[in-house]
Amino acid sequence: MKITEAERDSFYKVLFSRRDVRREFLPTPISDDVLNRILLAAHHAPSVGFMQPWDFIVVSSEETKKSIKQGFQEANQQSAEMFESDRKEKYQTLKLEGIEEAPIGICLTCDRSRTGDVVLGRTIKPEMDLYSAVCAAQNLWLAARSENIGVGWVSILHDKVLRKSLNIPNNLEIIGYFCLGYVETFQETPDLERHGWQSRREVNNFIHFEKWQK
Amino acid sequence: MKITEAERDSFYKVLFSRRDVRREFLPTPISDDVLNRILLAAHHAPSVGFMQPWDFIVVSSEETKKSIKQGFQEANQQSAEMFESDRKEKYQTLKLEGIEEAPIGICLTCDRSRTGDVVLGRTIKPEMDLYSAVCAAQNLWLAARSENIGVGWVSILHDKVLRKSLNIPNNLEIIGYFCLGYVETFQETPDLERHGWQSRREVNNFIHFEKWQK
Repeated sequence: MKITEAERDSFYKVLFSRRDVRREFLPTPISDDVLNRILLAAHHAPSVGFMQPWDFIVVSSEETKKSIKQGFQEANQQSAEMFESDRKEKYQTLKLEGIEEAPIGICLTCDRSRTGDVVLGRTIKPEMDLYSAVCAAQNLWLAARSENIGVGWVSILHDKVLRKSLNIPNNLEIIGYFCLGYVETFQETPDLERHGWQSRREVNNFIHFEKWQK
Repeated sequence: MKITEAERDSFYKVLFSRRDVRREFLPTPISDDVLNRILLAAHHAPSVGFMQPWDFIVVSSEETKKSIKQGFQEANQQSAEMFESDRKEKYQTLKLEGIEEAPIGICLTCDRSRTGDVVLGRTIKPEMDLYSAVCAAQNLWLAARSENIGVGWVSILHDKVLRKSLNIPNNLEIIGYFCLGYVETFQETPDLERHGWQSRREVNNFIHFEKWQK
């Protein structure tokens, strides 16, 4: 199946306008149809040995969000202490999640035993199943953007908080917790760039030919 | 920026027609323009603390591909031995890479120290930088598909082979090696499904509401 130039350009429009959203969520509900399309896109990620190791736990209850938010606040306080002076102050001014504002939360997990102990493609690199689940995360993120839905990946959160709040068994690895919602606007630049935390680097610095070079 | 329904559908066309390509590579060269667009798309993946921890090593020399292919053959032989009887026989009939046929190889790495020891968003979940690099892999894969270029992720390969062949320093984590090339055709279904290795599962089995449930 051939992708036309116009289709390619539409694809790139989605890809380059994706943002990590924390502040701009609207309460507008996400319909089941839209949510199902996004999850189907995630499910069509590549996976090692075609093991499809992911699960998606969809959260909409206020009570559950509240307990996850509390877990974030504790982890965020702990994290702030790791930065030094100016950086710590700056850190504390940043809004890093929209757990309660986003109508939907999705927790993504990886079941490393889904197709048995020996998995084609994981024989040499055991982390490949986790990486497959991360590919599902990126598919989810981009698919949401194509539906004009913002996504924020909340990583400042101890696994045990999600395990307890969502009843996740110990044999599943937790990949991430994602906030989803329609947004007031998609920012033109990443939050951390706009707020002077870290700037976009020049891609050419990271491209090497034939051999890695300093 | 609003994505229209037509643009969304183009995006989904790319996403759902992406395949892990091993057999169908053509020798047609990939122009610098096209390669640069794909790498720029990878570089626009989300990254924890906006650390952009990736490097891309672009391989086109036959000699380098030959040494990587040899590494694959050894790792693949070793892997085959891990499967039992019928499965082992089946495994040995599968073509699992197109290292020498694909005009371009790309090795993706992760520099975990790129922005210092303490990284926003990695304070609680140390693997977040690796996951960021995997998001770049998925962006690369999809962007290539939008350019009608097939990608195959070769994971049956010891890191030391890539390190030696590509002069990669020990402080960089190796995420994966990707074969890129135009293709005769994109298969409608994944190779492992078509060859009876593993079937596509029903997405609804992996969606849970409010709490994880068996």
